[in-house]
Amino acid sequence: MEKSKVQPLADRILIEPLEAEEKTAGGIVIPDTAKEKQQKGKVISVGKGRVNDEGKVTPLEVKVGDHVLFGRYSGTEVKVGGTECLIVKEDDILAIIK
Amino acid sequence: MEKSKVQPLADRILIEPLEAEEKTAGGIVIPDTAKEKQQKGKVISVGKGRVNDEGKVTPLEVKVGDHVLFGRYSGTEVKVGGTECLIVKEDDILAIIK
Amino acid sequence: MEKSKVQPLADRILIEPLEAEEKTAGGIVIPDTAKEKQQKGKVISVGKGRVNDEGKVTPLEVKVGDHVLFGRYSGTEVKVGGTECLIVKEDDILAIIK
Amino acid sequence: MEKSKVQPLADRILIEPLEAEEKTAGGIVIPDTAKEKQQKGKVISVGKGRVNDEGKVTPLEVKVGDHVLFGRYSGTEVKVGGTECLIVKEDDILAIIK
Amino acid sequence: MEKSKVQPLADRILIEPLEAEEKTAGGIVIPDTAKEKQQKGKVISVGKGRVNDEGKVTPLEVKVGDHVLFGRYSGTEVKVGGTECLIVKEDDILAIIK
Amino acid sequence: MEKSKVQPLADRILIEPLEAEEKTAGGIVIPDTAKEKQQKGKVISVGKGRVNDEGKVTPLEVKVGDHVLFGRYSGTEVKVGGTECLIVKEDDILAIIK
Amino acid sequence: MEKSKVQPLADRILIEPLEAEEKTAGGIVIPDTAKEKQQKGKVISVGKGRVNDEGKVTPLEVKVGDHVLFGRYSGTEVKVGGTECLIVKEDDILAIIK
Repeated sequence: MEKSKVQPLADRILIEPLEAEEKTAGGIVIPDTAKEKQQKGKVISVGKGRVNDEGKVTPLEVKVGDHVLFGRYSGTEVKVGGTECLIVKEDDILAIIK
Repeated sequence: MEKSKVQPLADRILIEPLEAEEKTAGGIVIPDTAKEKQQKGKVISVGKGRVNDEGKVTPLEVKVGDHVLFGRYSGTEVKVGGTECLIVKEDDILAIIK
Repeated sequence: MEKSKVQPLADRILIEPLEAEEKTAGGIVIPDTAKEKQQKGKVISVGKGRVNDEGKVTPLEVKVGDHVLFGRYSGTEVKVGGTECLIVKEDDILAIIK
Repeated sequence: MEKSKVQPLADRILIEPLEAEEKTAGGIVIPDTAKEKQQKGKVISVGKGRVNDEGKVTPLEVKVGDHVLFGRYSGTEVKVGGTECLIVKEDDILAIIK
Repeated sequence: MEKSKVQPLADRILIEPLEAEEKTAGGIVIPDTAKEKQQKGKVISVGKGRVNDEGKVTPLEVKVGDHVLFGRYSGTEVKVGGTECLIVKEDDILAIIK
Repeated sequence: MEKSKVQPLADRILIEPLEAEEKTAGGIVIPDTAKEKQQKGKVISVGKGRVNDEGKVTPLEVKVGDHVLFGRYSGTEVKVGGTECLIVKEDDILAIIK
Repeated sequence: MEKSKVQPLADRILIEPLEAEEKTAGGIVIPDTAKEKQQKGKVISVGKGRVNDEGKVTPLEVKVGDHVLFGRYSGTEVKVGGTECLIVKEDDILAIIK
């Protein structure tokens, strides 16, 4: 099964974690205590948006291909195409890296 | 009693767990620590939708026959037709597998 | 006092638990760890519906006579007419058995 | 001070507990573990209704004189006219006994 | 500083506890376990009312001079004019004693 | 940095605690167990008001210069101009002392 | 990667902590027990605003370049350009220092 076949629901996002750029000068470096859980990732697919209790959908701010920072310990791990990915809610995304 | 006779209420969904495709290259593989609780399933029947406090119904995004990923430890186990199924809320569904 | 004399309030439902059909092939079988608390029941009476904070009433989806599945540990036990029944909120009802 | 002089606020209700009809065949019998806290009572007085955050009042479903079932451990005990009564919110009332 | 100079905010109320009328036949008697915290009091001053998140104010049901019953352990103690008073939210007031 | 330069956000308030007037007859006396944390203070600056989730602002009831009572253990301590002040939400203010 | 490339989501803010001005007379001095976690910072970038459940965006009160006070233990640490920064929600900002 391919990554593009996983369609997250509502305000959920499928993320492929990126390697921590631990030695890059000027790059984002994950603090030492966070090595075991990635904080930077690439967005593989996104849900259609947050649904309020009247059925109104608000599209997500995050888009496919975005590089994002997300809280450690966020989301649920799933293995897709041999890679350990994460499904998180958009609210767990801290920032987009432009 | 047959599976089709279980009609979940509101935003609930009846799911029949699928075997973890543990050795399939490129397939979804449940992480080791999740073996005892399935994460992938097939939707057997769905409720009419989420009801807000004014009585307005929002139909569910998930449909009968969909293959879905859901959080471990979600929902309530029920045995239907000899199979151990789960009734979960749609909010516990992480993604649809297209 | 008869069962029909107990009128649940708002979104509450009076349920008479049904015997677990433990050996019926193809029937719903309560998992072993749930034997001590029934999960299947018959609806005896229902409240007028959920009331929102503006006084608007949304009638319940469950009707008198329905057979329902409900979460173990839901509701409050009351003995009515010599039978141990349960009063649960509709939100604790998982599914209707058609 | 007389019972009728206690005017509960908003969605609160003053209840005088009734004796558990422990031996009545066909009557409501409080389960053994609930003997120390009454579950059946008579409504002495009621508040004007639930007030939402815009000031709108929704009158209560329960009326003075009703016999009601309420959750054990609900409410606050007060002694009125030598009797130990309870003040509970209407949401703690499970059912009216017709 | 005088009591009338303490102006509670929003839905708060300044209460001067009244002596428990422990031996009055027919009067309200605080249960034994509540002796150390008064449950009956006189309203000294009240806030302008509950403010919802749109700025709308709903005046309080309780008025200056009312005798009220309030939950033990409610509110914050303040000494005003040598008397130990309490500031409670109106939601902690159980009933008015007419 | 001067006190007037600290501009609290939204419904927050900067308070300079006042000495507890422990021996003043008729004055507000902080109960013994609250000596270590001030309960009376002077408002130095206030936020623009509470913002609801539609962006509507409700101005605060408390004004600069007001003397207020606030719950012990409320807010966050900051030192401004050599004085240990507090930033609290308006909801933690119990009353204004006129 | 440069700081300006981190675009916080919704109501989040990227803050670069400032040195505690521990010995400045008249300046803000972090209380002793807070030395290990900065409380004063400079805003590097801000999200587009708080989004309510109907998709309406309320712009933030805090702007890029503002010096702010924020609660200790707020937010998530990220290293950007070799500096340990913080991403916090605007609700964790206590005050702007003008």
